[in-house]
Amino acid sequence: MSLPQTQQQILLARRPKGVPVAEDFALATGPVPQVESVGPGQVLVRQIYLSLDPAIRGWMNESRSYLPPIALGAPVRSGTLSQVVHSTVPEWQPGDLCQALAAWEEYSLVPAQQLMGKITKVPGIPLSSMLNVLGGNGLTAYFGLYDVGQPKAGETVLVSAAAGGVGSIVGQLAKLRGCRVVGLTGSDDKCEWLCGELGFDAALNYKTANLSQQLKDVCPNGVDVFFDNVGGELLDLVLPRLALRGRVVVCGAISEINRTEPGPGLRNVMQLMAKRARMEGFVTLDYADRYAAARDELAGYVREGALKTRDEIVDGIEHAPAHLLRLFSGDHRGKLMVKVADPS
Amino acid sequence: MSLPQTQQQILLARRPKGVPVAEDFALATGPVPQVESVGPGQVLVRQIYLSLDPAIRGWMNESRSYLPPIALGAPVRSGTLSQVVHSTVPEWQPGDLCQALAAWEEYSLVPAQQLMGKITKVPGIPLSSMLNVLGGNGLTAYFGLYDVGQPKAGETVLVSAAAGGVGSIVGQLAKLRGCRVVGLTGSDDKCEWLCGELGFDAALNYKTANLSQQLKDVCPNGVDVFFDNVGGELLDLVLPRLALRGRVVVCGAISEINRTEPGPGLRNVMQLMAKRARMEGFVTLDYADRYAAARDELAGYVREGALKTRDEIVDGIEHAPAHLLRLFSGDHRGKLMVKVADPS
Repeated sequence: MSLPQTQQQILLARRPKGVPVAEDFALATGPVPQVESVGPGQVLVRQIYLSLDPAIRGWMNESRSYLPPIALGAPVRSGTLSQVVHSTVPEWQPGDLCQALAAWEEYSLVPAQQLMGKITKVPGIPLSSMLNVLGGNGLTAYFGLYDVGQPKAGETVLVSAAAGGVGSIVGQLAKLRGCRVVGLTGSDDKCEWLCGELGFDAALNYKTANLSQQLKDVCPNGVDVFFDNVGGELLDLVLPRLALRGRVVVCGAISEINRTEPGPGLRNVMQLMAKRARMEGFVTLDYADRYAAARDELAGYVREGALKTRDEIVDGIEHAPAHLLRLFSGDHRGKLMVKVADPS
Repeated sequence: MSLPQTQQQILLARRPKGVPVAEDFALATGPVPQVESVGPGQVLVRQIYLSLDPAIRGWMNESRSYLPPIALGAPVRSGTLSQVVHSTVPEWQPGDLCQALAAWEEYSLVPAQQLMGKITKVPGIPLSSMLNVLGGNGLTAYFGLYDVGQPKAGETVLVSAAAGGVGSIVGQLAKLRGCRVVGLTGSDDKCEWLCGELGFDAALNYKTANLSQQLKDVCPNGVDVFFDNVGGELLDLVLPRLALRGRVVVCGAISEINRTEPGPGLRNVMQLMAKRARMEGFVTLDYADRYAAARDELAGYVREGALKTRDEIVDGIEHAPAHLLRLFSGDHRGKLMVKVADPS
């Protein structure tokens, strides 16, 4: 197989201060790694879809989190849906589709351990959904809600960033368990979408006045499970509304991720005491041995029409930075992705 | 039985601003409720011991917590060990010893539901211990550590306010489960007491410089269970030191209880995510159906000499305010109590 000699890459041009802007990225032309250069334990992959997630913003900072930062001048990194071009490890064969952690370029040389599971196309479900409802978003919603949140029928489940990739699935999964579901989101349009299309029982625009009182009105018996993607002041506002033995699933903190100054800090954590409540963090990767069963269950819901998701796809790697910025402006619904190439 | 006509009472003279001072209390002489005045569902009790706990400070504020505030000009309220003088309910007979929530006066008329369990003297254990290691402190340590914290042998358990009534028991119970135990306390003397007398593996004075680095050195593999009685900045400093799947038992927040201005808030709660960690609150009363079994287990440890506790008792109800203030100055070890009378 003959590969092109050069390819487009999206580099981290500088570390963002606060909310990322277009100038933090640079489009560059780089060499394509050739088949002869694939070393032991390495796999040459071609990116099909890039997954745009808040975690990328964290990796753009200089400080190490659970992964090292993206180097300045190096390609941006994200979750991807990729296809194996050449491999020196027997588990991976050319043509295999996989979820990976890979660079924003068409072809990448990656250590086999960065390939996070083979992807089998599921009949009747678009390939892009393997990065969304059957990928990281769906699995994060599934294990975070069901295993950490443990909602019971009749309980009230509150979700923040409810129109986002994870939140929109969480709400529908909670309905499937017989819960009353309330979403928090950033516009009246998205509130309508949540209640009209996705079957949420209620949705509040967190930019409107007196959110605390509205939350009290909409959740008169308190919040049994709060699935939180936002953190910061919104989390602090919800803590006093927890029901007895309430559970906060700490999934993300998109409100904090672009901060240049520390936020005010959480003042209401001591509410956990009298409420016998708990806050718990989780990492989806820990549930890898149950991915297959969870995907089967999620695929079943999608086929039945009980779980609706939206893949917001833009074509062309050169549009990846602009599409990523939409994650922070809040004008999207569902999951943002970039299509880099068609699978062979 | 003939009762005196008057008795000493300790009244709440004014609501404390910040740390309580002597002037917030007043010693008064009031009438003794007589046997004829005991109405249906009421019990006349005589206080034997008053239990001095941080919760009292909360009840001195105007805002309602899980119990209504103490009224201005009314006697202070606390947990007590009391003896029944006269009763209109069949469950309680004169001479019975009970744990109660009662007023700071010698004789009180209380609704039967404020009597929280009969006390049976345990051979070889002083009666005051029924308020300490076999009472609220011991039960709080037992259920908070074992049920909420779930420590496993070999894990590192960190305790704050480690020389206090609850903390000193928590550390010893963790040792009994095969854990490595580190205490946080406010003086070098108390550090010595924890390691020398109570068998803690290490203790840090949180007033010394560079606590965060010291904590890292003493807990090189992180903190598996943090049993927290202090809250606020100390809690925030410990959160980044949690081990994977660490658990924070939210027992109290004595650092916050005397604040007149809000504290800086917790900035490190998002550490729960990457650490897959949890913070959980609890209320000891929820475990009432297991008190008897827990007391048996605790009494066994005391008799074996495996669990040492200190009852810091002062004689005379008139000394109750000054003794209570020691709770906040941090110059005590173990449990503070006031002896009001000998049981008959």
